[in-house]
Amino acid sequence: MSIGYEVIARDGAARRGRLVTAHGTVETPAFMPVGTAATVKAMLPESVAATGAEIVLGNTYHLMLRPGAERVERLGGLHRFMNWKGPILTDSGGFQVMSLSKLRQLDAEGVTFRSHIDGSAHRLTPDISLDIQRQLGADITMSFDECTSWPATEEEAAKSMRLSMRWAERGKRVFVQREGHGLFGIVQGSVYPDLRLESAKALTDIGFDGYAIGGLAVGEGQDAMFAALDVTLPALPADRPRYLMGVGRPADIVGAVARGIDMFDCVMPTRAGRTAQAFTWRGELNLRNARHRDDGRPLVEGCACPACAGYSRAYLHHLIRSDEILGAMLLTWHNLHFYQDVMRGLRAAIEAGALADWIERFAEQQARGDIDAL
Amino acid sequence: MSIGYEVIARDGAARRGRLVTAHGTVETPAFMPVGTAATVKAMLPESVAATGAEIVLGNTYHLMLRPGAERVERLGGLHRFMNWKGPILTDSGGFQVMSLSKLRQLDAEGVTFRSHIDGSAHRLTPDISLDIQRQLGADITMSFDECTSWPATEEEAAKSMRLSMRWAERGKRVFVQREGHGLFGIVQGSVYPDLRLESAKALTDIGFDGYAIGGLAVGEGQDAMFAALDVTLPALPADRPRYLMGVGRPADIVGAVARGIDMFDCVMPTRAGRTAQAFTWRGELNLRNARHRDDGRPLVEGCACPACAGYSRAYLHHLIRSDEILGAMLLTWHNLHFYQDVMRGLRAAIEAGALADWIERFAEQQARGDIDAL
Repeated sequence: MSIGYEVIARDGAARRGRLVTAHGTVETPAFMPVGTAATVKAMLPESVAATGAEIVLGNTYHLMLRPGAERVERLGGLHRFMNWKGPILTDSGGFQVMSLSKLRQLDAEGVTFRSHIDGSAHRLTPDISLDIQRQLGADITMSFDECTSWPATEEEAAKSMRLSMRWAERGKRVFVQREGHGLFGIVQGSVYPDLRLESAKALTDIGFDGYAIGGLAVGEGQDAMFAALDVTLPALPADRPRYLMGVGRPADIVGAVARGIDMFDCVMPTRAGRTAQAFTWRGELNLRNARHRDDGRPLVEGCACPACAGYSRAYLHHLIRSDEILGAMLLTWHNLHFYQDVMRGLRAAIEAGALADWIERFAEQQARGDIDAL
Repeated sequence: MSIGYEVIARDGAARRGRLVTAHGTVETPAFMPVGTAATVKAMLPESVAATGAEIVLGNTYHLMLRPGAERVERLGGLHRFMNWKGPILTDSGGFQVMSLSKLRQLDAEGVTFRSHIDGSAHRLTPDISLDIQRQLGADITMSFDECTSWPATEEEAAKSMRLSMRWAERGKRVFVQREGHGLFGIVQGSVYPDLRLESAKALTDIGFDGYAIGGLAVGEGQDAMFAALDVTLPALPADRPRYLMGVGRPADIVGAVARGIDMFDCVMPTRAGRTAQAFTWRGELNLRNARHRDDGRPLVEGCACPACAGYSRAYLHHLIRSDEILGAMLLTWHNLHFYQDVMRGLRAAIEAGALADWIERFAEQQARGDIDAL
């Protein structure tokens, strides 16, 4: 048996579920902090867990280049290497090859590219990607795909998607099933409904432990993203988890949960935490702004994270102006905590059958945006 | 009554004591982590406390420039601002004016200088320094002094020291005594025994709650530093705490404790933590070095800090090579923990009357330096 998944409650299209993996269970809808280079930036793993995160993401592309997947395997696997005791999902490398590497050469079997770190040559194919993810020790492995660039014509998107479907089929064939470990397929097809449906059908025919929606949040906008979900999700098996890759802002997540997405990952909360941006119920706040200089109030009244429980906005502002590492540490912690607060709110609302009301209140608060009145 | 100090045990010239301040007690000999800009860099204050540190240092010079002492006072004082619940010692600003500021102009009453941050003009005098330290809310306030530059002729050192003594006298006159708060005088005199003795006598005649030794660890070397201590310490009141400012490496601290010093501060463990240097019983280790790449062992076997308890040298090396903030966080934590381990060892050895043996073992291990065999 691979990973387990059960739906505990439904509210419209939204699902309140539970993933069971070799390294523990994950309550869904779930947000996965991104631990690119075997660290969720500026956070100790126990602090990541303290926010309520139950699963983190590792990047195959980054880890294969540095420190190298074989090295991680020799050192006992990614869980031990980065001291994260919960489940880990690794991406396939496809997205970062597209966005970060140099001199990419695509062929029918895979892609050859140069490292953005030192220019060294590397290759990824479905077999190699799966092997790397196995070396890392992923609980959830992603099919190797070509992330379709944006914008793409329907022809380009079709060609790219069909290549990814062949790779998905190859991956499924060579993936070695182990208890508590699963392989997810990735739906591509850009913003073209027919292609999304074709991709969803192709993957469902192959049969995966979960289904990801890839190639979104790349510039198409929230409406186009939600439209792609509206087309795709009904075409995926209802008894398997669904993961929207690389998404997103809180409002993106809320809208996607309402449509039936169970899992998310995004660098947004961690990256924003290193650039003075804080997420709150009333929208985003830039702590670098001079108006926070004398503000003795916490960032978010009532928030249980250390940044809000122990410090004033004036102090956070001071840390940022002084380029102090603690500024990045506290804001990252707050943002991850806030994202988990959103997920906790969504899960409770689905269980209570009150998601529509919850979303209305959420949208109202975000729209009010009166962050000074927080 | 100002701050309390009692000697619990002695071993030779070394003292095992206890400081009592408005924000709690401090077991001595004590090492004070440096919280320059209202943060011990890369550490949450609860993590600083978890290493065993009971008192931290704040820098008057940095804080007066940013965020400004009046602002800190309005926001409830430095303890609340930086969320540090234990005692805080603030320096006088004299050392940083000398080492960091631009366009210094010294006169009989004080010094006028330009900020290294924005070039703005500022002035420090004994009265202003004390007022700033009061605004910050220091438990232990340092007399404003001119930190004698190194090297200095005997004539220069004498002139500088006598100026500091006049400032010390002025400071003592205007310092407002409060329960649990104390004012320390600072012995100057460079490496000249007669000047050190003259300075110690001048301060003792004025009468302070504690006595600091300043102007050392500025390039004179360990032998000259220890020689200055050997001259100075017998001339200071035995019933008051003694603080060696800006010192130092573990071996410096050990030697100074043996000579009767009770308190230390230094940026060494925190700064080293941000530059891949780790302190260990077997000397220093540079984690950036490629030989740690595949080393699955902890940094220091048996060390209780999170860096050693949860991670391999290979992982720390990876974080450093990847410029990950967590690398600075973990190594800073380890170094502060190690420094506190040294202090714990010294305190226990003095209590047991076994300091000489402890120091012999310490020196033997440091000299062996076989860090790979750790």
